[in-house]
Amino acid sequence: MRNLKLIIEYDGTNYAGWQTQSGRATLQQTLEETIHKITGEWMHVQGSGRTDSGVHALGQTANFRTRSRIPAARLRLALNALLPPDIVVRSVREAPPEFHAQFDAKWKTYRYTILNDRVPTALNRFFCHQVPVPLGVRAMRRAARCLVGRHDFQAFRSEGWREKDTVRTIRRLTVSKEGRYIYVTVTGDGFLYNMVRAIVGTLVDIGRGKRPPEDMEKILKSRDRKQAGPTAPARGLCLISVTY
Amino acid sequence: MRNLKLIIEYDGTNYAGWQTQSGRATLQQTLEETIHKITGEWMHVQGSGRTDSGVHALGQTANFRTRSRIPAARLRLALNALLPPDIVVRSVREAPPEFHAQFDAKWKTYRYTILNDRVPTALNRFFCHQVPVPLGVRAMRRAARCLVGRHDFQAFRSEGWREKDTVRTIRRLTVSKEGRYIYVTVTGDGFLYNMVRAIVGTLVDIGRGKRPPEDMEKILKSRDRKQAGPTAPARGLCLISVTY
Repeated sequence: MRNLKLIIEYDGTNYAGWQTQSGRATLQQTLEETIHKITGEWMHVQGSGRTDSGVHALGQTANFRTRSRIPAARLRLALNALLPPDIVVRSVREAPPEFHAQFDAKWKTYRYTILNDRVPTALNRFFCHQVPVPLGVRAMRRAARCLVGRHDFQAFRSEGWREKDTVRTIRRLTVSKEGRYIYVTVTGDGFLYNMVRAIVGTLVDIGRGKRPPEDMEKILKSRDRKQAGPTAPARGLCLISVTY
Repeated sequence: MRNLKLIIEYDGTNYAGWQTQSGRATLQQTLEETIHKITGEWMHVQGSGRTDSGVHALGQTANFRTRSRIPAARLRLALNALLPPDIVVRSVREAPPEFHAQFDAKWKTYRYTILNDRVPTALNRFFCHQVPVPLGVRAMRRAARCLVGRHDFQAFRSEGWREKDTVRTIRRLTVSKEGRYIYVTVTGDGFLYNMVRAIVGTLVDIGRGKRPPEDMEKILKSRDRKQAGPTAPARGLCLISVTY
């Protein structure tokens, strides 16, 4: 059995996330059906982690096993020919037999895009969250600092999946402004359910002056989701890369 | 009567262009219907020029007359609240009574986006044209040079509208590469039907080595559409700005 590693880009707008129980199409299911069409096999496609409904990816990573002998480069072409245009397999590589896209993931990088302008956008509307009031980027940066490191992030975990271990490590968290966009980019060894979006929602509250930057540390220490800000909308979030 | 100048961004994917005779929705008609909802008046919305079906805009400019007394800033909010999300009015300004968005336009800038990579894109799929074979950007630049200036561009005019005067001035035409994207940006005093897309189609033929850069001047001088390359797809084209 070969073990193949996929890097996948997708527009999550029309999917119920990577994997769910609902009736709507999921990314995992769409990939498994397409692989079945090509190889005749029904194989589990293991993602690096779940992305929520409406969340996008530039570099989601997954693996699956197959008996097919189709060369990796040909398989990439066949997948992209049969997948809907909102899913693109960027690469297919042979992986060691023991490679597991979720358990072996070391770091994941997410980027959240905020359109900080009174005027909305037509062209980029599915890929950003508009905040019409001016945000203080320096306050957001100051607040973000205390999140870097190894912490219990329970305060930023939504109901839903119930991870037992709520300790995660954030290696990097940057807030950058380019024109009318603000990007929150965060690299961590893993994220709790809705954690990035709850962090962004809290940063937006701080950026608009609804609460001071010092509150972030209090929220983190409280381990109480009710202390943090709202969950920012899915459409602004994109899984940029996974490293192994 | 007030005369109002609009700057409009739109995702042209789901429209039959700015103005057509077909049964499908057009941008002009959608704007006129929305203005009617707000002011109760049916007024002609005059664009700087027509964009084709599937072509996008960041800065299309238009004007319309109204007896309404709604302040310009409030009107912008009302328009964006009622327009579908793929059309955004970026600004509404009072204009002199004689201002005409088409006749007064001095320069228009279009940008064409080529994805020059074997791997397609999911996130940007409606806004670029994929060319999987590597393109020689230097050859494209060399070929583009002869188009700058005042010329008869009949060789790059598709059947459709039959402009009598086929002489236009291109002030600037650049070919730039950023990562896996190539941008063709062109500023002119006006463009014939499908002219930018025919120029891009010819530049792509030259970039892939199908014909030498020197051919561009021969094509221009021939005034024969059959000498030029194919019309590049609409989705890669965006009207960036109009200056007055």
